[in-house]
Amino acid sequence: MGSHDTRVPYRQSDRPTSVRVDDLLDRMSTAEKAGQLVGTWCGQLRHENDIEDAKAAIRDHHIGVAAPFGWAGALCAGIEETVETVNDLQRFALEETALGIPLLLNVDAVHGNAYVAGATVFPNALGTAATWDTTATETVASVTATEVRRMGAHQNYSPTCDVGRDPRWGRIFETFGESPRLCAELVAAKVRGYQGDGIDHEDSVVATAKHFPAYSEPERGEDASPVDISEYKLRNTFLPSFEAALDAGVASVMPSYNSINGEPVHGSETYLTDLLHDDLGFEGHVVSDWNGVRHLSDDHRTASDQRDGVRHAHTAGLDVASVGHVEHAEHLVDLVESGEIDEGRLDESVRRVLRVKFEMGLFEDPFVDADAAHETLGNSDHRQIARETARDSMTLLKNDGLLPLDGDEDVFVGGPNADDIVHQLGGWSVPQSAGVPGDTVLDAIDARSKGSVTYEQGTTLNEERDIDAAVEKATAADVAVIALGEGWYLHEFGPSVQAGVETGAWPTRSDLHLSDAQRELVRRVHDTGTPVVGVLVTGRPLIVDWMAQNVSSILMAYYPGTEGGTAIAETLFGDNDPSGRLPISIPRSMGDLPQYHDCLAHPTPIGDDEHPNSYDPLYPFGHGLSYTEFAFDDLRIRSDDVDPAKDVDVTVTVSNTGNRHGTETVQVFATQETSSRVRPRRFLVGFDRVGLNAGESANVDLSIPAANFGYYEPGEGHVLETGTYHVTVDDLVSSFEVASDGA
Amino acid sequence: MGSHDTRVPYRQSDRPTSVRVDDLLDRMSTAEKAGQLVGTWCGQLRHENDIEDAKAAIRDHHIGVAAPFGWAGALCAGIEETVETVNDLQRFALEETALGIPLLLNVDAVHGNAYVAGATVFPNALGTAATWDTTATETVASVTATEVRRMGAHQNYSPTCDVGRDPRWGRIFETFGESPRLCAELVAAKVRGYQGDGIDHEDSVVATAKHFPAYSEPERGEDASPVDISEYKLRNTFLPSFEAALDAGVASVMPSYNSINGEPVHGSETYLTDLLHDDLGFEGHVVSDWNGVRHLSDDHRTASDQRDGVRHAHTAGLDVASVGHVEHAEHLVDLVESGEIDEGRLDESVRRVLRVKFEMGLFEDPFVDADAAHETLGNSDHRQIARETARDSMTLLKNDGLLPLDGDEDVFVGGPNADDIVHQLGGWSVPQSAGVPGDTVLDAIDARSKGSVTYEQGTTLNEERDIDAAVEKATAADVAVIALGEGWYLHEFGPSVQAGVETGAWPTRSDLHLSDAQRELVRRVHDTGTPVVGVLVTGRPLIVDWMAQNVSSILMAYYPGTEGGTAIAETLFGDNDPSGRLPISIPRSMGDLPQYHDCLAHPTPIGDDEHPNSYDPLYPFGHGLSYTEFAFDDLRIRSDDVDPAKDVDVTVTVSNTGNRHGTETVQVFATQETSSRVRPRRFLVGFDRVGLNAGESANVDLSIPAANFGYYEPGEGHVLETGTYHVTVDDLVSSFEVASDGA
Repeated sequence: MGSHDTRVPYRQSDRPTSVRVDDLLDRMSTAEKAGQLVGTWCGQLRHENDIEDAKAAIRDHHIGVAAPFGWAGALCAGIEETVETVNDLQRFALEETALGIPLLLNVDAVHGNAYVAGATVFPNALGTAATWDTTATETVASVTATEVRRMGAHQNYSPTCDVGRDPRWGRIFETFGESPRLCAELVAAKVRGYQGDGIDHEDSVVATAKHFPAYSEPERGEDASPVDISEYKLRNTFLPSFEAALDAGVASVMPSYNSINGEPVHGSETYLTDLLHDDLGFEGHVVSDWNGVRHLSDDHRTASDQRDGVRHAHTAGLDVASVGHVEHAEHLVDLVESGEIDEGRLDESVRRVLRVKFEMGLFEDPFVDADAAHETLGNSDHRQIARETARDSMTLLKNDGLLPLDGDEDVFVGGPNADDIVHQLGGWSVPQSAGVPGDTVLDAIDARSKGSVTYEQGTTLNEERDIDAAVEKATAADVAVIALGEGWYLHEFGPSVQAGVETGAWPTRSDLHLSDAQRELVRRVHDTGTPVVGVLVTGRPLIVDWMAQNVSSILMAYYPGTEGGTAIAETLFGDNDPSGRLPISIPRSMGDLPQYHDCLAHPTPIGDDEHPNSYDPLYPFGHGLSYTEFAFDDLRIRSDDVDPAKDVDVTVTVSNTGNRHGTETVQVFATQETSSRVRPRRFLVGFDRVGLNAGESANVDLSIPAANFGYYEPGEGHVLETGTYHVTVDDLVSSFEVASDGA
Repeated sequence: MGSHDTRVPYRQSDRPTSVRVDDLLDRMSTAEKAGQLVGTWCGQLRHENDIEDAKAAIRDHHIGVAAPFGWAGALCAGIEETVETVNDLQRFALEETALGIPLLLNVDAVHGNAYVAGATVFPNALGTAATWDTTATETVASVTATEVRRMGAHQNYSPTCDVGRDPRWGRIFETFGESPRLCAELVAAKVRGYQGDGIDHEDSVVATAKHFPAYSEPERGEDASPVDISEYKLRNTFLPSFEAALDAGVASVMPSYNSINGEPVHGSETYLTDLLHDDLGFEGHVVSDWNGVRHLSDDHRTASDQRDGVRHAHTAGLDVASVGHVEHAEHLVDLVESGEIDEGRLDESVRRVLRVKFEMGLFEDPFVDADAAHETLGNSDHRQIARETARDSMTLLKNDGLLPLDGDEDVFVGGPNADDIVHQLGGWSVPQSAGVPGDTVLDAIDARSKGSVTYEQGTTLNEERDIDAAVEKATAADVAVIALGEGWYLHEFGPSVQAGVETGAWPTRSDLHLSDAQRELVRRVHDTGTPVVGVLVTGRPLIVDWMAQNVSSILMAYYPGTEGGTAIAETLFGDNDPSGRLPISIPRSMGDLPQYHDCLAHPTPIGDDEHPNSYDPLYPFGHGLSYTEFAFDDLRIRSDDVDPAKDVDVTVTVSNTGNRHGTETVQVFATQETSSRVRPRRFLVGFDRVGLNAGESANVDLSIPAANFGYYEPGEGHVLETGTYHVTVDDLVSSFEVASDGA
């Protein structure tokens, strides 16, 4: 088998892609076309597929997409076996099928190619967001793309564009936090990093903007639960990050699992065609979120059976069913042959997939090399970038002066996350430590400290171990560093058993407090009188109200990745100034949810004193302490009357008034004085990081697109209304007018 | 002054109302017209108005609406002074103004005319809803109307049509609970009761459907906070109760304070004209919720100043500014004179108000009589009706067999709500006990018990008192009845100081657990070994997870009104079988919110076992125990193929299998098998109460409109899709088909 006649146009790499696509499409049967729109897997998903199962699907059903590695249940996670599997599958597709179409391989490499043991693992998205650093975020994505391509995959199911509005949700750590603006800027950076100058480059991957369009404010914080929203909120809260991804040229989009206003997105023409293609102008291919098509019949019950679900999805605008496997391909062929799905619709999807394969050069060479992979994954350059990102993400929530440590203290280290590299990686990573580079918190403190270091875990995430021993060691120390928080989980806090955590135990959706065991440990250690630093290795904001009242210092470390232990130690000992700033609010209580800085204004009918503040978190969005002090002065806006089509030029002077180098993030918020619709009390419009030596001052100039001050008015589009806008940086306020709406 | 020439057409009661309206309108200046659309007050609101201030507003600004009593800050609450004030104001309006137009007086008589000391106070709405009794609800409203009219008021700012979806909200007790269907049926009953055969009857009042249209799922549970919803949810969750009110002929509608999707309803043409008038066909008058117009500029900031807010509101479709007072009238005149508001729009509103005044006969006689008021308010017939409603609302959440009591036990009574008639009334009632009829829980137990009764409060709502003394007395008793819960509050848990509660103390929005003090009391008493009955006098579902695990019995009493103490005692001692069924779910934890039975289905992407149940409350919607046992059998649906235009006839056999008389509520739920949009996992479609003697069985026939099984499809309207529907009663299931959609 194998049509390797190099004289056919689609095999000639010097032909334009469109010619090659047309030529190949002309040669394809309906079944061959359908197969290009369906993925299979190797590993445990709905059922166990081994490599022979995948080959059978490729041979018998012309399957054109596969995920042999790079996800939670995948067959292989080691470099050697993965390279071998990838090459074996590609060789099979090229040689054992009539048309010899290479496979498009996808991975979930959301914070580095982290499902390969040995890869560089960056902080998860929430930690990356704490850097407020678009350049670093782009670099991280670029390194990830390289490590993905060296392993033979082509499409990364990243970036997550979801704006994180409910910290109960088990995927909040995959988001860039609560601000639509911060998310938009970082999403765009990630797309640029993944796709580089184009997907035809050997170090680029196809980026996938997910989960389109409003996955991240699920009811009750339950994963994939229904979302009910207005167009106003959809457009102004959830779409800006997707628009930024599209503007950055993202090549693929993934629908969200949930229903929006009763419409499951995987079967929704409203969202996948009208909004995504027709309104937002997306021209790439849409890939299902794993079993998203099956959920239409099995869960949402908007399709009568799986065949009907396949019909809904492709009619709506889905191109590729990521794990549709044999059944999906069969249904799709049947639906086209029966006329229920138009062959033109099928061709449109196939063209999109083939174009990607041609542009990536897969017809010329889809193979990878084990030596190159070994040299690339987790190399020292890549890990240095991960270390810098982890450092810059460190967010100091509280410090009574205990930090930074001198270095010669006797340090007690405890807690469930002090010596656990898997917890430090968090979900969307290999759930075992074997082959994972990097130091744990304990390792790194041990390496850095000049005093003695003692260790006692004290508690697992949920269960007390020898707290008495921890207390005894803490009593003897000068300082106690307790690394608390969460472990490895996916989605709705599962399948935690993979990472050694009991299913159903904390962390759970419904409680953001630390587990009883962890709270007991920190209380008991605090009671010794030894000053306590709480380090939070966690995917979510945790309600640490007792710690905020009682312990000396709290460092939010997120899931910092392979280099996170080192970054934490460097921060504790002052080698690194903590410059992370919270990308999400930390609430005071479960009853205060949702808490986000850009909530809408509203009345208090029976008097101001009867109503608590709507936004009154334990630690607000943007919060984060430094080891030095910063002062802001002289906030100015270049023009009193802003042109809607241009930038708002904001200048502010930042001074390092402390006695060491440090890095501050200028956060620019806006408020519209009077508006046609109720707008947020304040919202982020721009930001910039600035590093300053002790005593140094700098004028920070930000050119903020005027559009960032406007909003989307349903029925009208993006508007910047005339009137007064107030700009705040720290406690400074300046204002400007928009005299004409530029229409 | 005073145009009392009886020859002018508008003064002739035998003329058609339309002729009288036209005639009067022709004689009115712009200022006189504007005044008819503006209300004033006597008492403390934005500022203190006394009766002379009100008269000045009537004389100088032609104010035509007033609230001299019947609300929280009103000038008078006693019968004599109120009658005198009302007559004084009406006499002034008739005699001291050129046209002699009587005042339309409004009250907040939401559960009886409860702002008059001496009136009959019924259970608040949530308690009334627990009866699932439309006939009783209509009777309650009818009695209320009579007690309102005898005091001289004409319009009742009731019923609340809001569907209670977030128990954090401080107005949840004003709702009929979480089910759109239960709310709709009870709202319609209340409108029928208020308006009787027409507002021209001397025992009828103008009913006011409030708060249109989606007030009751405020973000964070904060009163008046923004609501963001799709049309799907608006139509299917929040509008059915308003549609039921309109179908029942409700004469007035009140907008909600909040913004919906960024549009403050008081200034929204979308909601007040397009939806309410044009789509739903409402022809009555729209009254502002108190300061709702001022909030447009002061809080929502969609109006630039108060004058602009007045323009927004009247342009949008508001007719009457309830407490607009002089400033609103001045702005309105100015806006009409400047042409910013069309005089035709003004006339339309004035016609609506004048029509009500003519129809109610106010031009003939707006006066009331103190003797008649004394004979009517709180008379024994009325109180008997209140007692029956309170009895039927009693909802037994848990019972290990301790209840009913024999009557000869030695009973210890404790808790903050055992001897507090004001707490028993709850908000929207006089906040002092002076003149209030009825027994407290303690009084009623004392009267009924044949054993000894000891009492020790133990704790206020928030602060421990002598718990040791309570423990001592409980130890000596055979049973301890502890009345726990909440006190008197309005809106966002204020102004509690009126009811002797510290502002900011529990109850608060963010915590549904009992206060620490109350939990301590119940734990300490439980520890004595004396079996404990917890009685919850509360406006909201409370998270009583510890009690659910530990104490013998829990009785949910809501705010049961003046006769509530008696109804509670009758239930404890078995004179009354508890037949209340929860109209709202009681959640397990704050992190589980929102919890309601008709949540939408959704997928669990990584496996069923990883995802907790979406609906897993401590006590579910519809729950309530009896002192006898009921069995359900033989659920049948008359026709397999249902005609969409007709009823679905459901029959089920209910048997009292216990050994005493009892009352059960047949609750009929439905599930649509496959639907175009995601629909609730199950939803209430019908219900009926049935009383049965021991051993008795009855076939209960319910004719449920087929439309109750359908839903509103945006862009299409009300639909009943073809396909299979499953009907459940208790654990019985039956199904039917809709073969054609009847279109």
